[in-house]
Amino acid sequence: MVLTNCKKLFAAANVDAIYTECEFLMRYATGMGPENGGVLIDKDGATLYTDSRYIEAAKKFFEGSDVVPVLWGGKKLTEILGAYQRVGISYSQTSHARFLALQKSGAEFVDVDTVFTESMIVKNEWELGNIARACSIAEDALNMLLPEIREGMTETALAAQLEYNMRKLGAQGLAFETIVAFGANAAVPHHETGLTTLKFGDEILVDFGCRVNGYCSDITRTFLFGDDGKHEEFKKAYSHVLRAHELVQERAVSGMTGMQVDAIARDYLQANGYGELFTHSLGHGVGLNIHEAPSVSVRGEKTLADGMVFSDEPGVYVEGEYGIRIEDTVVLQDGKIKTFMGKTRKDLLIL
Amino acid sequence: MVLTNCKKLFAAANVDAIYTECEFLMRYATGMGPENGGVLIDKDGATLYTDSRYIEAAKKFFEGSDVVPVLWGGKKLTEILGAYQRVGISYSQTSHARFLALQKSGAEFVDVDTVFTESMIVKNEWELGNIARACSIAEDALNMLLPEIREGMTETALAAQLEYNMRKLGAQGLAFETIVAFGANAAVPHHETGLTTLKFGDEILVDFGCRVNGYCSDITRTFLFGDDGKHEEFKKAYSHVLRAHELVQERAVSGMTGMQVDAIARDYLQANGYGELFTHSLGHGVGLNIHEAPSVSVRGEKTLADGMVFSDEPGVYVEGEYGIRIEDTVVLQDGKIKTFMGKTRKDLLIL
Repeated sequence: MVLTNCKKLFAAANVDAIYTECEFLMRYATGMGPENGGVLIDKDGATLYTDSRYIEAAKKFFEGSDVVPVLWGGKKLTEILGAYQRVGISYSQTSHARFLALQKSGAEFVDVDTVFTESMIVKNEWELGNIARACSIAEDALNMLLPEIREGMTETALAAQLEYNMRKLGAQGLAFETIVAFGANAAVPHHETGLTTLKFGDEILVDFGCRVNGYCSDITRTFLFGDDGKHEEFKKAYSHVLRAHELVQERAVSGMTGMQVDAIARDYLQANGYGELFTHSLGHGVGLNIHEAPSVSVRGEKTLADGMVFSDEPGVYVEGEYGIRIEDTVVLQDGKIKTFMGKTRKDLLIL
Repeated sequence: MVLTNCKKLFAAANVDAIYTECEFLMRYATGMGPENGGVLIDKDGATLYTDSRYIEAAKKFFEGSDVVPVLWGGKKLTEILGAYQRVGISYSQTSHARFLALQKSGAEFVDVDTVFTESMIVKNEWELGNIARACSIAEDALNMLLPEIREGMTETALAAQLEYNMRKLGAQGLAFETIVAFGANAAVPHHETGLTTLKFGDEILVDFGCRVNGYCSDITRTFLFGDDGKHEEFKKAYSHVLRAHELVQERAVSGMTGMQVDAIARDYLQANGYGELFTHSLGHGVGLNIHEAPSVSVRGEKTLADGMVFSDEPGVYVEGEYGIRIEDTVVLQDGKIKTFMGKTRKDLLIL
């Protein structure tokens, strides 16, 4: 059964009611984010308003929970909101047009962007369960893909096959646009998957993820499509990126700042001569958004705590030559890091 | 080369500049909609601001066009907008938080939602080219799928295969969540694709589409997975839905209202006893949004004109028994309807 965040949100906001029509904020509050819906939370509980397409599913979904599904169309929304003095809405997830319309209720509006952002950092069991499932599907999809990789395939075809595998395994969508990079394309961290074809001896970098009930997984693996004997530098760098990735999982503990966790990988790579080639952050929060708080970077001032989910993704990039990134989605639990990923190999795989 | 709508938009809006950061509005104006970007249009031309990830691609894309790509980070945005008196922004596609931030520029803001919506109804050659390509990919993907359909497949597996085919053929994304319905599931127009398995004698309804440069295709086909001899009612209804679908393409002309075009199909089905079973609109506009103006329904008061793109999708639904929908994406050209779809069969296909 869904474990909602309605009470948690209401307790954190100094308002008489919280109201949102934003898909991912509704999902965060209640577990469900219908295309046409609104969630209202007050001291007595939570209501999800939606239309006839979703109401039956909502009734089933919310059985036994603290959310009451209601069909749109009784009282006008402006009347409903007008019954409260201070109503919290997210200014960043409400259009200006909608803000003007809601203002007609006469309620005083307060921005609760920060209430949502802060609350979303620490995940509950339902949220962790969804992320774990999304990670498991991503790993299974990659393992299914490996034996099907052939010389001459395009990056796009490989991405399509990976996405197809995730879909078949129960993914409800992609977490973000799949990155597949062959050869030197991998040196661009945000490479746009294209029509480059795979050749013997190429490296392959895949960075991808899927969604389960809106929650994302994020994983990157780098491997070789055959060994043409020209990859000594690559192999050396790979072993260092892998060690940096592992060190984070061995040493990061609750109570460290994002900056301190980032430094575990950064200092190690620096000490081994790769400092300037690690050109991005170690990680970012993962949840209903593929990039959210906390930041695990040189600017990560927030203290990390149990229940926070983020990526551990050190990388090394040499323009025109190669790029290596190894990424797990991980969670802090009982003070330590636990990875969601245990099904795919991380030692250098040569296909 | 991209044929932009910047001048068209500026001419239609009574402002000193138009500014948008919305992905699909940037795409509509210029052909490109980077994740982190902004488009400014004034009397002298158009500028697309974006970051280092997109700037090289933008330079290539806009060569020879009337849009100048500029790297974010020179003048502050509030200074840039502050140089104008009246700035048009879309209130429905700007968050309230962003509105408050932009207001610091000191410019007077005007809502240009209607300017965009009205301008987007009539497509230019670049837009039509993208829609045609998206339709062609969707049809090819369906033709590739047909010989692979097997008893016992789930709706989800069939959807995944169809999406994989589109991706391989060059689709840049889905136009909307693929609907696959087996048997009586097809009686629900917005059926959620699930784990129902295919049995001999089932009907199959697929409603899907993809995107090319942001532009959508939308197609529905209904067929039988083997004929178990129990489909007399279904076959009769099929022939009438098909006739209604064809009549629209034979008789609709520029100058009719959406309502009049809707009536071509509705009157025909009514006359044949299916009036009450045709429970939705005949069609909707198709472009950068899968549902946009013009409305081709009993409420469609707008006069249809050359360059407008919409769906022709009559349907008949009998709860618990069957559902039939046949849909093409079509355009008005030289006063008449031209369908984008000529590669897939519409006579009743029995696999």
